[in-house]
Amino acid sequence: MFNGFLEDLVNNLKKLPGIGSKTAQRLALHLISIEKAEALNLSDSIKIAVQSYKNCSICNMLSETDPCRFCEDTTRISNVICVVENTQDAYLIENLHEFKGRYFVLNKLLSPLDGIGPDEINFPKLEKIINSGEIQEIILALNPSAEGESTINFMALQFEDKDIKITRLSTGLPFGGDIEYTSSLTLSNAFKRRYLVTE
Amino acid sequence: MFNGFLEDLVNNLKKLPGIGSKTAQRLALHLISIEKAEALNLSDSIKIAVQSYKNCSICNMLSETDPCRFCEDTTRISNVICVVENTQDAYLIENLHEFKGRYFVLNKLLSPLDGIGPDEINFPKLEKIINSGEIQEIILALNPSAEGESTINFMALQFEDKDIKITRLSTGLPFGGDIEYTSSLTLSNAFKRRYLVTE
Repeated sequence: MFNGFLEDLVNNLKKLPGIGSKTAQRLALHLISIEKAEALNLSDSIKIAVQSYKNCSICNMLSETDPCRFCEDTTRISNVICVVENTQDAYLIENLHEFKGRYFVLNKLLSPLDGIGPDEINFPKLEKIINSGEIQEIILALNPSAEGESTINFMALQFEDKDIKITRLSTGLPFGGDIEYTSSLTLSNAFKRRYLVTE
Repeated sequence: MFNGFLEDLVNNLKKLPGIGSKTAQRLALHLISIEKAEALNLSDSIKIAVQSYKNCSICNMLSETDPCRFCEDTTRISNVICVVENTQDAYLIENLHEFKGRYFVLNKLLSPLDGIGPDEINFPKLEKIINSGEIQEIILALNPSAEGESTINFMALQFEDKDIKITRLSTGLPFGGDIEYTSSLTLSNAFKRRYLVTE
């Protein structure tokens, strides 16, 4: 149906997360139908954002500035560090307005089978920060997936000798979830980690 | 939460149909996280598509070539013309693989209160095609909305003296729809336009 430059555009839009063929076609036709200036604004803002964002040299977060605004902000607590997989996750946590410490972005999770070891997840850099001696708590805010679990276990092992609290996000039933539709792994974990109603 | 070039990108993405704040944020962070080359490909393909597509001088359809491939295609039936609101709608109809005639894109629907009269919907150009004498059927494939209905009525009036079949898309219950959740306007129309089961 689509050909030429429109087909190229559809194919590039389809690579975005959550954008299927139909949505990509609708968006592509929308883009060539609206005011040229408006569509070109989008094109330019992608280019500018992509070219301006780089990894913060301290925490690896994608940022326009180096150091990033979190590392630069002297009002943030500097003895708690929240380790996340990527910048997206850091933004989601930041959005809760509950955490005022530092972040550290791994950019990948451990996956030995894919050749992703400690070096690939920026572990040496994290180790240096931890060894600076200031950190009192490491929050491992990683997905409870296979890779997330290995990364959590690896980090816990590496830092167990130090006098540092190592925590992870709680696991269990999501609010609004339904026991009937919960995986047995999640349910079993939720049962084991049950807590006092008065807690 | 977002600032600088990332905020610009989020704002531009939010203008796309069906893209809300959350999706725009997710897409923006995705774009600055992936390989720069891939994100720049998207930026470039928007620019190239936008700059390459213009309205076909015969039917007004957005096209890389002028005349468009539908107007240029001599194997298509030239005595039936399908009048659509925009290029998107023409593509959706073309996708049915049932229509082999010509298209004509109005680009707008009549809306006197918004200052959209016959000139703004390219009516003089359509009239010229109709007056060429070749056309035997005009299919008014327009939305059954207030503007669509006025446009259909206006066209029907303009061409009533000519020996041309003027048709519109059937209206009624959508397949898979539910009478309980159908508007009374649709239901009343479906009742009036009921047809023999054997038809």
